[in-house]
Amino acid sequence: MYQFETSIRVRYAETDQMGYVYYGNYATYYEVTRVEALRSLGISYKILEENGVLMPVLENWSKYIRPAKYDDLLTIKLILKEMPAMRINFEYEVFNEDKKLINLGSTTLVFLDKSSGKPIQVPDVVQDVLKPYF
Amino acid sequence: MYQFETSIRVRYAETDQMGYVYYGNYATYYEVTRVEALRSLGISYKILEENGVLMPVLENWSKYIRPAKYDDLLTIKLILKEMPAMRINFEYEVFNEDKKLINLGSTTLVFLDKSSGKPIQVPDVVQDVLKPYF
Amino acid sequence: MYQFETSIRVRYAETDQMGYVYYGNYATYYEVTRVEALRSLGISYKILEENGVLMPVLENWSKYIRPAKYDDLLTIKLILKEMPAMRINFEYEVFNEDKKLINLGSTTLVFLDKSSGKPIQVPDVVQDVLKPYF
Amino acid sequence: MYQFETSIRVRYAETDQMGYVYYGNYATYYEVTRVEALRSLGISYKILEENGVLMPVLENWSKYIRPAKYDDLLTIKLILKEMPAMRINFEYEVFNEDKKLINLGSTTLVFLDKSSGKPIQVPDVVQDVLKPYF
Repeated sequence: MYQFETSIRVRYAETDQMGYVYYGNYATYYEVTRVEALRSLGISYKILEENGVLMPVLENWSKYIRPAKYDDLLTIKLILKEMPAMRINFEYEVFNEDKKLINLGSTTLVFLDKSSGKPIQVPDVVQDVLKPYF
Repeated sequence: MYQFETSIRVRYAETDQMGYVYYGNYATYYEVTRVEALRSLGISYKILEENGVLMPVLENWSKYIRPAKYDDLLTIKLILKEMPAMRINFEYEVFNEDKKLINLGSTTLVFLDKSSGKPIQVPDVVQDVLKPYF
Repeated sequence: MYQFETSIRVRYAETDQMGYVYYGNYATYYEVTRVEALRSLGISYKILEENGVLMPVLENWSKYIRPAKYDDLLTIKLILKEMPAMRINFEYEVFNEDKKLINLGSTTLVFLDKSSGKPIQVPDVVQDVLKPYF
Repeated sequence: MYQFETSIRVRYAETDQMGYVYYGNYATYYEVTRVEALRSLGISYKILEENGVLMPVLENWSKYIRPAKYDDLLTIKLILKEMPAMRINFEYEVFNEDKKLINLGSTTLVFLDKSSGKPIQVPDVVQDVLKPYF
């Protein structure tokens, strides 16, 4: 199992008139967390893309438990329960500053060859950094 | 069962560098569809809120089948399979201009009393317009 | 002079906790208006891009006079005061449902050759449809 | 004169299909920079709002010099050239990782009493922390 944690400060732009973070913005928080998790493993998603690997999202799920509010410094925990093969599944737990769980999420992505548009196995560079955790 | 259909044109702001609609933006498409469905039934979500009823999202799920692209005129079908009680569950099917299914979604919302912050039964005004369909 | 008008309904996603449309979202309203103006002239910005013409923004300005609110059906008037050459300058006036002016804006874009990345003259197809207005 | 600097990492959600940061998203970068500048001075905009002071935007201007790209770690310099009175004007310079200037901006905000909706003088708490710089 691989775990990672990062923090994200809620922006005014991300709130809605209910005074909560708009429900669609959690997808962006998940994205930032995935990218920072990869970076902490020594992998730049930007460079992956430049090397011809796209990672489009196949499925995304969110459960909203408590609202996130403006200026909250959220802690987002990312969990990778299984070594990825053709797909990679990230799970998330989002906590507010009072350490209360406010959101649960899950995203499944696929690895795609940019030129052919066809799904590929998890690239070696990703496999190599993840292997020690499984 | 209640069904409704609306169209949404993909904005440039909603695309990402993959050339697809960013995965988090479907939540906004679902929101617009829910609001237009209610409007077609004679209910303004805006006025519901002004009358003290909030509808925060409890759960949201998306399956991405094909990419939506810039300037696509998407057709979004909303389905309400059950008469809502404490919660309301909307399902969606998103089609592109070639009538291909590109996305499936589902959102569960709860009715909340704005002043107490407590969950309430589906308001009478919503119940009255939906009853004929169930 | 060329003028065009379109309507945009304010989405919940576009509001912030002040209960107003977030100030950065007017740029998207301007974008939609530009694209619909071109479409009404028989030009698809999507196809322009597919034919190798990009239109990045050089400058953008907004004056916020009154707030736009959730579910408002805004009317956006676009004005092209001069025949474009190397650059194109759009001005906007945004009105709410009470016909009150709520926002003024202006965007300058440049035409770019996608392969060379170099600025180009306004494409013939755009020039041809605009000429009758100047 | 008061100056402040912060960094913002470009998110995938903020790019568009041109491969650039969408032009409307700079407004969010400016917002984050303003809020972090205030925080570094010991002022929480969140608490200002809770104490009944709103700061809606009156005017916003951006000049786009070079594109910002995905995953760029931008440096945003904020400059306050004048001691604010009824209005406050922030200027920005955005640099990419190569220290190239990519964007210039300026935002004017007004202080508003939340209950009356009327403009007010810059709150004492803001005046006190800014005075030493002018």
